[in-house]
Amino acid sequence: MSQDFEHLRERGLTQERVFSGHILRIRVDTVALPNGEIANREIVEHPGAAAIVPLTDDGQVLLVRQYRYAVGEVTLEIPAGKLEHANEDVTETAKREFKEETGCHSGELIYLGRTHSSPAILGEVLHIYAARGFAQDEACTDPDEFLELVRVPLEEALAMIRRGAITDAKTIIGLLWVKQFGVASDQQPPVTGTLEDPGAS
Amino acid sequence: MSQDFEHLRERGLTQERVFSGHILRIRVDTVALPNGEIANREIVEHPGAAAIVPLTDDGQVLLVRQYRYAVGEVTLEIPAGKLEHANEDVTETAKREFKEETGCHSGELIYLGRTHSSPAILGEVLHIYAARGFAQDEACTDPDEFLELVRVPLEEALAMIRRGAITDAKTIIGLLWVKQFGVASDQQPPVTGTLEDPGAS
Repeated sequence: MSQDFEHLRERGLTQERVFSGHILRIRVDTVALPNGEIANREIVEHPGAAAIVPLTDDGQVLLVRQYRYAVGEVTLEIPAGKLEHANEDVTETAKREFKEETGCHSGELIYLGRTHSSPAILGEVLHIYAARGFAQDEACTDPDEFLELVRVPLEEALAMIRRGAITDAKTIIGLLWVKQFGVASDQQPPVTGTLEDPGAS
Repeated sequence: MSQDFEHLRERGLTQERVFSGHILRIRVDTVALPNGEIANREIVEHPGAAAIVPLTDDGQVLLVRQYRYAVGEVTLEIPAGKLEHANEDVTETAKREFKEETGCHSGELIYLGRTHSSPAILGEVLHIYAARGFAQDEACTDPDEFLELVRVPLEEALAMIRRGAITDAKTIIGLLWVKQFGVASDQQPPVTGTLEDPGAS
């Protein structure tokens, strides 16, 4: 939709990087509002990410249990990971992260769609795939990540969403998407993870 | 789930605030991993938020069109906003943000559930409600926010998710939730927005 609604757009004027860590890069930009007034925007830069809904032949979904320090909880999530750089092929990201977190070759990957995790502050575009027909190899989970794999029937996973046992946004989206639309989409898969630079407009 | 899986938990050791803006507050903490090794965690603090799926009596959903600088796009989203402080009653947040963004008194609010928008880096817990039976007053939208209200039949909004015209995560979750589960939940509404401090464990 970004080509329309010019009367709503903000124009980036200046950029200042105020923090640059191993994971997070924070910017404070000045922008011109549609009425010409000036405002600040504090944003978290992000290279983009890929997530995969792993569907087994017998109607189960493969989830990753892990501790998330930022929210102070153990979560159940579909496998996911960030692009190594903004030009990485997103489907390659999906394959790599799926293998790293599950020990599985991803088999058939079907593109579902993209989501903005938190568009008020976070530049992330998350691309969601489904995976079918994968074969689980020997576990080759990154030993530093303290991940556990869990197989859950899809219908049980949906009940877990409803009762709050699955809270991760991308996981809720992936599972409800597959339930509502099937393993199908009207969207084209991304060519690369290249993001529009909000400051470049 | 946070009471279980102690073998996965990380323990906060030190906290350093590395950026404190008007919106974003960034911390770098050191943590003890389950095996005793030390690691850093870069996190975006967040007081929590509330979002509302506004359902009209004639099967439409009320959405807000706005420009999101962090992602460089105009988006369609359900009304939402942050808690003013971590102890605010979340239902009061929902009422206030709904009124601010739509000009409507929220009518009947039904709690659906909570989601973690980006649990790897962002402390946000987002509580999602449905609203029914609201009466639209004179528009009292905050004139600084450049918001436009759009009414869309729920089925058309679902088609917009499928084709990528709605990308905001909380909006996808809210609409697919209502489609899949109805205006119903197995979860209790929150009493306050108080969050577990990940550094206090």
